[in-house]
Amino acid sequence: MTGPALQFDLFRQDGQARLGRVTTRHGAFDTPAFMPVGTQGTIKGMLPDHIAATGSQIILGNTYHLMLRPGEQTVAALGDLHRFMAWPGPILTDSGGFQVFSLADINRIGDDGVTFKSHIDGATVHLTPERSMAVQNALGADIIMAFDECPPGTAPIEYQQKALERTLRWAKVSVDSHARSNDQSLFGIVQGGTSEKLRAFCAEELIKLDLPGYAVGGLAVGEGFEAMKAVLSFTTPILPVGKPRYLMGVGFPRDIVAGVARGIDMFDCVMPTRNGRNAYAFTANGAIRLRNAQYSRDTGPLEDGCDCYSCRTFTRGAIRHFFSADEMLGPILVSVHNVRFYQRLMTDIRQAIAENQFDEFQRTDPRCGLGPTERTKVVNG
Amino acid sequence: MTGPALQFDLFRQDGQARLGRVTTRHGAFDTPAFMPVGTQGTIKGMLPDHIAATGSQIILGNTYHLMLRPGEQTVAALGDLHRFMAWPGPILTDSGGFQVFSLADINRIGDDGVTFKSHIDGATVHLTPERSMAVQNALGADIIMAFDECPPGTAPIEYQQKALERTLRWAKVSVDSHARSNDQSLFGIVQGGTSEKLRAFCAEELIKLDLPGYAVGGLAVGEGFEAMKAVLSFTTPILPVGKPRYLMGVGFPRDIVAGVARGIDMFDCVMPTRNGRNAYAFTANGAIRLRNAQYSRDTGPLEDGCDCYSCRTFTRGAIRHFFSADEMLGPILVSVHNVRFYQRLMTDIRQAIAENQFDEFQRTDPRCGLGPTERTKVVNG
Repeated sequence: MTGPALQFDLFRQDGQARLGRVTTRHGAFDTPAFMPVGTQGTIKGMLPDHIAATGSQIILGNTYHLMLRPGEQTVAALGDLHRFMAWPGPILTDSGGFQVFSLADINRIGDDGVTFKSHIDGATVHLTPERSMAVQNALGADIIMAFDECPPGTAPIEYQQKALERTLRWAKVSVDSHARSNDQSLFGIVQGGTSEKLRAFCAEELIKLDLPGYAVGGLAVGEGFEAMKAVLSFTTPILPVGKPRYLMGVGFPRDIVAGVARGIDMFDCVMPTRNGRNAYAFTANGAIRLRNAQYSRDTGPLEDGCDCYSCRTFTRGAIRHFFSADEMLGPILVSVHNVRFYQRLMTDIRQAIAENQFDEFQRTDPRCGLGPTERTKVVNG
Repeated sequence: MTGPALQFDLFRQDGQARLGRVTTRHGAFDTPAFMPVGTQGTIKGMLPDHIAATGSQIILGNTYHLMLRPGEQTVAALGDLHRFMAWPGPILTDSGGFQVFSLADINRIGDDGVTFKSHIDGATVHLTPERSMAVQNALGADIIMAFDECPPGTAPIEYQQKALERTLRWAKVSVDSHARSNDQSLFGIVQGGTSEKLRAFCAEELIKLDLPGYAVGGLAVGEGFEAMKAVLSFTTPILPVGKPRYLMGVGFPRDIVAGVARGIDMFDCVMPTRNGRNAYAFTANGAIRLRNAQYSRDTGPLEDGCDCYSCRTFTRGAIRHFFSADEMLGPILVSVHNVRFYQRLMTDIRQAIAENQFDEFQRTDPRCGLGPTERTKVVNG
């Protein structure tokens, strides 16, 4: 066991790419894994049976949103987050740190924690590593995250350093405050911006805590694709081989493939569902924007050859109409497709690693090039 | 066969209540039947597999909405309405008349048809019986409706009479313009407000057209429960025994039960889905409003003993949160429950008729009393 409540089996490496499986108290998931994001206790527009049908094996919940509404005590009174979301499989919750620093109206960042105004009712909220752990313990996810500070990538190096020291202090407080280490596994988060020195220092300090897994945070926040790859290239080799590695908030298919190539095992991103709600469907040949009039009488599926419910059931023309008419079915169907698109990508990545063909896969599969500028610049939507 | 494309088997009568089955080119449905409403090519928030799982066997589409957007030629280019909605079973489309008279900004009502402004883009649209038939032929539903005028119940009797004559003239034009009588069955609509004389006259004239089925229109438009029952009591006995009878736009469980008791075989209403989207869940003991704070930590299902997906899967507390957080899952789950609630009612009505127990069912089952004033006056939502 990697921890009391987590086992990581590493089956094979192909270059830096790793094929494995993480086993939790609520079941296992194959790695590299993609986790759809259930911000407020639901993956927007998707029922649990749809989520499972996409091949998703683990999902993510947001501590920040759930602590503000309905409140972690309400989730606990209703069972736990698994029962609340009707998702019996593995769940990971983040620490709330990223949302506080990206969404909230912050009053004060102190050495003990952060004070901010709730975006729901304006109430003053104080979030500390102790409180983040208490909330995550009440929610009951299988993997929980240490509370960290996420400074903007543009912050001066002096501030980055100060934030990093705080992140390390908070990681230790998180470990000490974690009340359910027997059934919840606490991962540490490596911060340090684009500085190799800071990343190495942070990783080494966290490794001393002997945590069951490690995340790389503070990426996918505007630093750019090349910088992300550079940070991963010098960070993951420091991390222990026998523990899962999670790249937070990433990303486009291109970014995920680059992460796998640099030894990352777990990913999460709102992109498949958020883009799906905006009529943006992923396909191997680039994104399609369903609001575009060219699809109005298109009898084909969202993506040729896709086995998802949406592609098996509805024409592009009908889905375009659902968006035009502001019907829920549009966002639902494209979200289902996009999550399945991501999970098919992960399945094919795992297969390529299993066959020692990951380099070939990276070079030849068109999905590996899908990023923000790849054929997605359509005007509508 | 009742018509070239419709067979009605009447298995049994219990008082006026009838147990039967209607068979169309796209399959059969048991009567008395409730049809959920798919206004714009989708039953709002429900995927076809959810709809089928509620026990729904036939659904309704709205000609008015579909002709304006995406346009019947677009639906036809994508296959037909069955393919468009991914509903392989029976479908009924209305004629557009009711929506024109209740929703549209009408410029002119003439003897040939109605001119109105589209609620989508303000374009001037001319709807005639010929055009209604052409649209319904293009959509391809199994049962289609004659184009009728629906005057407000408060209109003077002279106007009612004039509207009725127009409705009868339009019914004949509808019959003459119907281009697919081999696979689509055209029903006539009995109008006449609350006047026994007008209703009888209209019914008798329509019967001369020997249509495969007959609807009672112009009810559930504010005339009140007692007036509705009175109209049904003197109208249905005039209609041919061997053809299905459809009460349009009805209603609360109480109204449906009263319709069955007066020989009605088919019903449709937006109530289960519209109320569902507004956090209003039907239960045998009255409606519950999920926005009410009393449900925030309620671990029970929407309705004890209900076998629907929502009740098997989610707590009231979680569903309340989905509404509070404006998540699609709230409207989806309560719509699924409400449609299932209606279909369980229909199943139990059919069972009661089969056992010659319909009177007993009406007297003792609490659902038979559920109407607009029955325990639904909760402040929230």
